[in-house]
Amino acid sequence: MSERGWVYSNGEIVPFEEARYWPHDLAIIFGDMVFEATRTFNSRPFRLDAHLDRLYRSLRYARIDPGMTQESMRQASLDVLERNLPDVPSGSDVWIFHNVSRGIHPQFRVPERDHAGATVLIWTHELGFRFWADGYANGVSCVTTSVQQMPPGTLDPRMKTRSRMYLALAEQEAHAIDPQSHALMLDANGHIAEAVGANFMLVHDRTILTPRSGTGLAGVSLVTVRELAGGLDMEVREANLTLYDVYNAEEAMLSSTPYSLLPVTRVNGTPIGAGAPGPAYGRLLAAWSDLVGVDIAAQAARFDK
Amino acid sequence: MSERGWVYSNGEIVPFEEARYWPHDLAIIFGDMVFEATRTFNSRPFRLDAHLDRLYRSLRYARIDPGMTQESMRQASLDVLERNLPDVPSGSDVWIFHNVSRGIHPQFRVPERDHAGATVLIWTHELGFRFWADGYANGVSCVTTSVQQMPPGTLDPRMKTRSRMYLALAEQEAHAIDPQSHALMLDANGHIAEAVGANFMLVHDRTILTPRSGTGLAGVSLVTVRELAGGLDMEVREANLTLYDVYNAEEAMLSSTPYSLLPVTRVNGTPIGAGAPGPAYGRLLAAWSDLVGVDIAAQAARFDK
Amino acid sequence: MSERGWVYSNGEIVPFEEARYWPHDLAIIFGDMVFEATRTFNSRPFRLDAHLDRLYRSLRYARIDPGMTQESMRQASLDVLERNLPDVPSGSDVWIFHNVSRGIHPQFRVPERDHAGATVLIWTHELGFRFWADGYANGVSCVTTSVQQMPPGTLDPRMKTRSRMYLALAEQEAHAIDPQSHALMLDANGHIAEAVGANFMLVHDRTILTPRSGTGLAGVSLVTVRELAGGLDMEVREANLTLYDVYNAEEAMLSSTPYSLLPVTRVNGTPIGAGAPGPAYGRLLAAWSDLVGVDIAAQAARFDK
Amino acid sequence: MSERGWVYSNGEIVPFEEARYWPHDLAIIFGDMVFEATRTFNSRPFRLDAHLDRLYRSLRYARIDPGMTQESMRQASLDVLERNLPDVPSGSDVWIFHNVSRGIHPQFRVPERDHAGATVLIWTHELGFRFWADGYANGVSCVTTSVQQMPPGTLDPRMKTRSRMYLALAEQEAHAIDPQSHALMLDANGHIAEAVGANFMLVHDRTILTPRSGTGLAGVSLVTVRELAGGLDMEVREANLTLYDVYNAEEAMLSSTPYSLLPVTRVNGTPIGAGAPGPAYGRLLAAWSDLVGVDIAAQAARFDK
Amino acid sequence: MSERGWVYSNGEIVPFEEARYWPHDLAIIFGDMVFEATRTFNSRPFRLDAHLDRLYRSLRYARIDPGMTQESMRQASLDVLERNLPDVPSGSDVWIFHNVSRGIHPQFRVPERDHAGATVLIWTHELGFRFWADGYANGVSCVTTSVQQMPPGTLDPRMKTRSRMYLALAEQEAHAIDPQSHALMLDANGHIAEAVGANFMLVHDRTILTPRSGTGLAGVSLVTVRELAGGLDMEVREANLTLYDVYNAEEAMLSSTPYSLLPVTRVNGTPIGAGAPGPAYGRLLAAWSDLVGVDIAAQAARFDK
Amino acid sequence: MSERGWVYSNGEIVPFEEARYWPHDLAIIFGDMVFEATRTFNSRPFRLDAHLDRLYRSLRYARIDPGMTQESMRQASLDVLERNLPDVPSGSDVWIFHNVSRGIHPQFRVPERDHAGATVLIWTHELGFRFWADGYANGVSCVTTSVQQMPPGTLDPRMKTRSRMYLALAEQEAHAIDPQSHALMLDANGHIAEAVGANFMLVHDRTILTPRSGTGLAGVSLVTVRELAGGLDMEVREANLTLYDVYNAEEAMLSSTPYSLLPVTRVNGTPIGAGAPGPAYGRLLAAWSDLVGVDIAAQAARFDK
Repeated sequence: MSERGWVYSNGEIVPFEEARYWPHDLAIIFGDMVFEATRTFNSRPFRLDAHLDRLYRSLRYARIDPGMTQESMRQASLDVLERNLPDVPSGSDVWIFHNVSRGIHPQFRVPERDHAGATVLIWTHELGFRFWADGYANGVSCVTTSVQQMPPGTLDPRMKTRSRMYLALAEQEAHAIDPQSHALMLDANGHIAEAVGANFMLVHDRTILTPRSGTGLAGVSLVTVRELAGGLDMEVREANLTLYDVYNAEEAMLSSTPYSLLPVTRVNGTPIGAGAPGPAYGRLLAAWSDLVGVDIAAQAARFDK
Repeated sequence: MSERGWVYSNGEIVPFEEARYWPHDLAIIFGDMVFEATRTFNSRPFRLDAHLDRLYRSLRYARIDPGMTQESMRQASLDVLERNLPDVPSGSDVWIFHNVSRGIHPQFRVPERDHAGATVLIWTHELGFRFWADGYANGVSCVTTSVQQMPPGTLDPRMKTRSRMYLALAEQEAHAIDPQSHALMLDANGHIAEAVGANFMLVHDRTILTPRSGTGLAGVSLVTVRELAGGLDMEVREANLTLYDVYNAEEAMLSSTPYSLLPVTRVNGTPIGAGAPGPAYGRLLAAWSDLVGVDIAAQAARFDK
Repeated sequence: MSERGWVYSNGEIVPFEEARYWPHDLAIIFGDMVFEATRTFNSRPFRLDAHLDRLYRSLRYARIDPGMTQESMRQASLDVLERNLPDVPSGSDVWIFHNVSRGIHPQFRVPERDHAGATVLIWTHELGFRFWADGYANGVSCVTTSVQQMPPGTLDPRMKTRSRMYLALAEQEAHAIDPQSHALMLDANGHIAEAVGANFMLVHDRTILTPRSGTGLAGVSLVTVRELAGGLDMEVREANLTLYDVYNAEEAMLSSTPYSLLPVTRVNGTPIGAGAPGPAYGRLLAAWSDLVGVDIAAQAARFDK
Repeated sequence: MSERGWVYSNGEIVPFEEARYWPHDLAIIFGDMVFEATRTFNSRPFRLDAHLDRLYRSLRYARIDPGMTQESMRQASLDVLERNLPDVPSGSDVWIFHNVSRGIHPQFRVPERDHAGATVLIWTHELGFRFWADGYANGVSCVTTSVQQMPPGTLDPRMKTRSRMYLALAEQEAHAIDPQSHALMLDANGHIAEAVGANFMLVHDRTILTPRSGTGLAGVSLVTVRELAGGLDMEVREANLTLYDVYNAEEAMLSSTPYSLLPVTRVNGTPIGAGAPGPAYGRLLAAWSDLVGVDIAAQAARFDK
Repeated sequence: MSERGWVYSNGEIVPFEEARYWPHDLAIIFGDMVFEATRTFNSRPFRLDAHLDRLYRSLRYARIDPGMTQESMRQASLDVLERNLPDVPSGSDVWIFHNVSRGIHPQFRVPERDHAGATVLIWTHELGFRFWADGYANGVSCVTTSVQQMPPGTLDPRMKTRSRMYLALAEQEAHAIDPQSHALMLDANGHIAEAVGANFMLVHDRTILTPRSGTGLAGVSLVTVRELAGGLDMEVREANLTLYDVYNAEEAMLSSTPYSLLPVTRVNGTPIGAGAPGPAYGRLLAAWSDLVGVDIAAQAARFDK
Repeated sequence: MSERGWVYSNGEIVPFEEARYWPHDLAIIFGDMVFEATRTFNSRPFRLDAHLDRLYRSLRYARIDPGMTQESMRQASLDVLERNLPDVPSGSDVWIFHNVSRGIHPQFRVPERDHAGATVLIWTHELGFRFWADGYANGVSCVTTSVQQMPPGTLDPRMKTRSRMYLALAEQEAHAIDPQSHALMLDANGHIAEAVGANFMLVHDRTILTPRSGTGLAGVSLVTVRELAGGLDMEVREANLTLYDVYNAEEAMLSSTPYSLLPVTRVNGTPIGAGAPGPAYGRLLAAWSDLVGVDIAAQAARFDK
C-alpha cells in the first residue's frame, strides 16, 4: 500500500514513492511539458472532459504525442482517482493532475532502460483548502508587478504548460509586498491578462468583464462562470482592461479550478468597490454550489487546517 | 554500485536510480528551476567557476536560495564527478549538470516526508558526441522560425532556466524543415538573439559579430571565444544583427558548452560565405584545442557512435 | 496582331510587346503602384466591381490620381478582356490585372516625351491552373517564417500594392523548406495575418475563423466565402489567431482570386485536422462552383499542364 | 542612335526606348527588385565599388542571383556610362542606376519568349541639379510624418529596394505641408531613422550624430562624411536620436548620392541652430569638393534650370 | 464683486483673482491633477452627471481623494454657475471646469498655512465660439503628426488628466503646417486614437466608425452621438482605424464638449469625401440642436467675435 | 516682507503669497510646462549653468519661448536666491525652482488683464532633509511597478516636464507596498529607465552601470557622479539593465539634485549586495562632499526634523 497514494505512470498505477521525473526527462531539461488539473466535488471530477479537451489542445500546439487517446487518458484519470479515494477524508475533495512531457531527451536516452515517447503521469492530492478558505468571506488581494505576461509570439498563453517560471517571478514580486496576494499579470501594452493560476474578472453594472481571450489561459472555471451568469441575468463581455477599469469596478473576482471563485477586495492596496465581497460574487458562488451539490465556502472552512 | 552513475541529491550522493524529481516539486509545477551545465576536457571541468558564477546569478535573479554556498556547490560537483569518472571511457568526457529548483510546492508539502528548501541535484553524463561530431568538418545548418525569443520584460534570457519550452517549440518548427538543424531565435524586432542552447556569431572582415548582450544567454563558451580571438588578432563586437548580416557574412558559428564551436554553413538553406567551414572557425577551434589539451574535433570523431 | 495579347496602356489598347514600364516610372523607382487582379469564370469577370472598389480605395489611400473614373477603368478592363478572349482556350479563364502607378518620377520626366499623371496598364493572362490544380484534392501546405507582416504604422496591409518584397522574402524562407508551400505571415505579436496572396481561414465547430480585418488584404474571395457560408449554416468570425488555433483546427483554407478556395492540410509539416481536405471546404467549393457555373476543381484539373 | 541614351539590359546595350520592365516582371508584381544609384564627378563614377558592394549585399539578403559577377556588373556600368557620356553637357554629371529584379514571375513566363533569371538594367541620367541647387546656400527643410520607418522584422532597411512605397506615402504627408520638404522617418519607438533617400545627421559640439546603423540605409555618402570628418577634427557617433536632439542641435544635414551634402535649416518649421547653413556643413562640403575636384554647390548652381 | 467671475476653491466661492495654484501644488509639481469640462446650453449644464461620473472615475484611477462626494461636487458646480450666470451675455453659454489635484506636495507643505488634501477648483468661462464658429459650415482640417498617443501601459488615456503635454507637442507639429488644424493622434501601431481634445469619427455607408474604446478619452459628446445616431438610423461601430479608412471615408467628424460636433473636411491636406460637410454630420447636428433647444451653429456664429 | 519668501514672477520679484498659476495657464490646462530644480551648497547654487542648459534644451524641444535669455534666467535665479537667503537657517540649503509654462491659454486670455507669452516663475524652498536624511546611513528601498516609463515616441523623457502624472501613479503603486520606497521605472521592454525623480545606478566590479541615455532624464547629478568616478578609478558605462542586473549588483544608488547620492539597499524587498551601503557609494559621497565643501550626510542629519 502507498502512504502517499497512487500514481498513474506511463501505463501502470504505482505508489507515489515510485513516481518520478528523471533528471533527463524533457520536463526537466526544457520545461517541455503540458498539464491539466481537475478537481472533484463530492469525489466526482468536475468537467473532466473540458479539462482533457484543453490538455489535448495543449498537446497539439506543442506537437507532443501523448501515446494514448483522450479516452484512455480519461479512463486512467478515473482509475487513479478511484484508487486514491479511500484515503480522502469524508467531505473533502482532491486535485487530479494530468502531466504529459515530451519524454526522455534523446541525447541522454538509453534505449534498454528508458521509456520512449511521452512521459504521462497522473496523480491526485487532497485540495489545500487552507490556502484559500479565508478568502470566500474576506476577499483576497491582487498586486500588479513589473513582470509582463508571456506574449503569444513567444508562447501562446492558452497552452497550459509547466514552463512558466515568469509567473513564479511575478509571485516573488507580489509576495514581497503581501505574502497572501495573487500576482496580476499585465501584458506589454498595460492590459490585464490573468492572475497567476486564475482568470481575473470585473463586475460593472451587471456585466462581467474579462480580459480578451487569447491573453491568458482559457479557464474551465471561466466557462462555468459564463454559464452561471446567463442564469443570473448577467452578461459576460471581453474587453481590453487596465487598472483604470479595476479601480472603477464594482467587484473583482478570480476563478480557478481549486477554489472555483474568490472575491478580490483589494488591488495594489486599493479597495475595489466597497472593499468587501459583492453581490454578483455571492450569487455566482451560490449558483456554483448548487450546480455541484457542495457548499463551496463551507467545505473550505471545514477543511481549513 | 550504480549502473547509471551517481548523483548529488540534496546533500548526499546516491545512485542515479534514486535521484528524481517528485511531481510536486516546483521544478515540475512551475518550471521553477535554474541550472548549469559544465563539461570536462581530459576529465577536468572546464571553467567550472564561470558556470557556477552564472548559476548563482540565475539564483539571485530568481530569488531562489540554494541552501548552500557556491564553494559547497563546487565541491559537490567535483565529488560527483570523481565518483563517476571511473565509468567514463578513456579519452571521452562528460557533462556535469547542476540543477537547483525552488523545492517542493508549499501546497503539497508534507513536512514529515518532504525536504524543505531548494532541490539541488548534480549529475553527470558522457557527452553525446554523435550529435555534433559531423559538424566540425561539414558544418551545421540553422533555421529561423516564427517563435520569438523570450523578451526580458517577461523573463530575462540571461537566466539559465529550465522554463524554456518556447525553445522546444522553435526546434519543432526548425526540425520540420531539417531534422538536423539548429533553431535560430529572433526577437520581436527581427534581431538575432541566440540559437537554441548556443550563442550565434558571424565573421566579417576579421571581426566576430555577436548579438547584443542581454538578448540571450551570456555564454561561457562565448567568453572563451572572446579570449581566443584576442590572441588571433580578431576583434569581437556586439551589434543588432538581422538576416541581412547573416546572408552577407563570411562565416557563421555556434558556441556552446558540449561542442565548444561549430561552423554554420547554411541558414534557411542559404550557404553562408563559401558554404563550408571557414578559416576564422578553424583558427579558433585549433586555439581552443590547444587551450584544453584536447583535439576537440578528433575526440568527437572518435566517440561518434 | 499580338502574339501575347493586348494591353490597355494609358488610354489605348496596344500589343503586349508595346506595353512596358519605363525605368523612370515610380512603379520602378519607389514600388509606388497599386493594383487589382480580377479573374473570369466562363469568360465573364467575377466581381469586377468589388475589385475596382478596392482599387479605388487603394488609390485614395496612396493619394494617386488615376486620371480616370472607376467607370472608365471598368470599361477599359472589359475592352481589354474582349480583345483577348478569342485567344483563350475554350473552357479556360483569365486574370485581368489593373495596374496604376503614380507615373514618371518628376526628376526624370521629359515633358515632350513622357506622359504626365498616373501610369495605367490593364492586361490579361490565362490562369496558371497548373500551379494549384493538385491542391483541390490533395491540399496544400503552409509554412510560417521569421518575416513579419507589414505593420499598419508603416503601410496599411489593406492597400493592394506592388511594394511587397517582404512577401517575396517570406516565400524565399518558406520555399527553402518546401518549394510548393505557401508562406503564412504572422505579425510582430505572433498573430496570423494572411498568407502570401491569399486570406487564411480556420474551421472549428461550424465556424470559420479569420484573422482580424485590418491585418491583411480585405479579400474579395473572403467576402464570397462569407456569403456562401451563410447559406451553408456556417458562421464566420474574426479572432486573434495563433499557431495554437491552427494546430487545433478541424480544417484550414486559403481563399484567393485565381483558385477561389484551397484546403490547407499541413502547416509547418503538422497535419491540420485529419490531414486531408475537410467537409466545410468541400461544401464551400461546391457552392462556389454553383455560384459561378463552373466546376472549379475540374476546370483546374483539365488545364493542369 | 538613341535620343534618350543607352541602357544595359540583360547582357546588351540598347537604346532607352527598348529598355523596359514587362508587366509580368517580379519588379512589377512584387516590387521584388534591389538597386543602386552611383553618381559621377567629372564624368567618373564616385565610389562605384562601394555602391556595387552594397548592391551585392542587397542581392544576397534578397537571395536574388543576378546572373553576373560584381566585376561584370562593374564593367557593364562603365560601358553604359561611356556610351552615354558624349550626350552629357560639359561640366555636368550623371546618375548611374543599377537595377536587379528577380526576373519574370514563373506563373507568367513563356520560356520561348521570356528571359530566365534576374532582370538587370543599368541606365544613366543627367543629375537633376535644379531639385537641390538652392539648398546648398539656403538650406532645406525636413518634416516628420506619421508614417513609420520599415521595421527590420519585416524588411531590413539596409537593403536598397524598390519596394518602398511607404516612403512615397511619407513624402505625400510631408509635401502636403511643404512641397519642397524632405520627409524625415521615425521608427515605432520615436527614434529618427533616416530621411527619404538620404541619411540624416546632427552636429553638436564638434560631433556629428547619426541614427544607429541598422535603422536605415548604410549610406555611401555617410561613409564619405565619416572619412572627411576625421580630417576636420570632428567625431562621428551613433545614437538614438529623437526630435529632442534635433531641436537642440547646432546643425542638421542630409547626405545622399546625388547632392552629397545639404544643410537642414528647419525641421517641422522650427529653425535648427541659427536657422542657416552652419560651419560644420561648410567645412565638410568644401572638403568633399576638394576630394572630388568639383565645386559641388557651384556645379549645381550652374545647372539649376 | 469679481470682474472675472467667481470660482469655487476648496470649499468657498471666491473671486477669480483669489483663485490660484500655488507653485508647490502637485498640479504644478507633477501635473498630478484630473479634471472635467462641462458646457451649458441655455445656461443649463449639459450632462453634468456624465461628466462628474467620469471625473470620479479619473479620481479613482489616480487614487486621488477629492475630499467631497460627487453630489457635493455637483452642487458646488451649480453654485459657481449660478453665481456667474448674470455676467454671461444673453444667448451665450459657458464652460464649467472641475479641477482636482492631489494637493500640496508633502515636502513643501507648511501645515499652518497650506490646506491638506486635494485642491478642488471649479470655474466657468464664456465659450470661445470664435475658435470654431467657422467650422460648422466650412469644416475643419486635421493633421497627423509624429507624436504618438499615450500608451495605456504608461497612463490610461481614458483618464482626463492635465498631464498631457504630449498633446501640446502634437499641436505644435500640426500648427506648424496649418495653424487652424486639429492634431490627430495615432498610437504606436498606426491606429487612430483621438484628436487633441476631441473624439474622431468616420462615416461610411450609414455607419459611424470610431477608434476602439480605450485608445482615447471616453467622450460624453461621443455618447451623445451614439444616442442621436440610433434615432437617425445610423449604426455606431468601433474599429482599428488607420489613414486608409480616413481617406476612404464619406465623412469625418470631431465631437467635443465645447462645440458638440464639427465636420472634418481635410486630413493632411486631402479632402475627405466631397471635401465639404456631409449629410450625416448635418442630420446629427440638427438632432443635437433639437435635443438641447439651441441652434448650435447659429449660436456660434452669433458669438463669433 | 514675505513670510514664505520671495518669488520671481514674470519679471518682478513678489511675495510668495502673490505668486500663482491661474487656472487658465497652460501649465494647468495641458501640464504644458518645463522646469528645473537647482540646489545650493553653502548657499551657492550647484551647477546652475548645467541646470539652465538643460532647461533651455527642454524649452527648445517643447518649442516654448521663455521670453528671456538664459543669462537673464540665471540672473533672475540669483536675485531670488539672494532675496531669500536671509531666511534660510544657517548651515541649511535650498532648492531653486525654475518653472516655465507656455503661458495663458489663448482661448481664455483677456489681453487687458493677462500677460502674453510664457509664464516664468522662480522660487526657492529650504531642502526637506527629513525626507532622505536617514537614507545616507541606512539605505533606501526601490520598488518596480506596472507603470511603464514614458516612451520617447510620445514624449522624450529627457525633457524635464511637469506633465508626469505617470510617475505619480507609479509612486502610488510603490507606496502601497512601502511608503518610504522610491518607484523604479521600467520601459515596455523591461529595461530599467530611472527612478522617480532620480537616476538609478548599479555598481559591479568597479564599474558604475547606468541605464542607456535617452531612457530617462539626463541628470546633472549623474554627470557629477561620472566626473567623481573618474578620480576614484571607477568606470561609468551605459547598458540595458534589467532586474537580473539589479539583483546581481554589488551596490545600487540613486542620484538626484536634492540629496546628491543615496545608497539603495533593497529592491522589491530583496537586499542588494550586502544589503547595506557599500564602499563605492561611500567613496563617491565623500568625494562629493569634498567637491562642495559640505558634509552632505551630516548636513542632512542636522536638519532632519
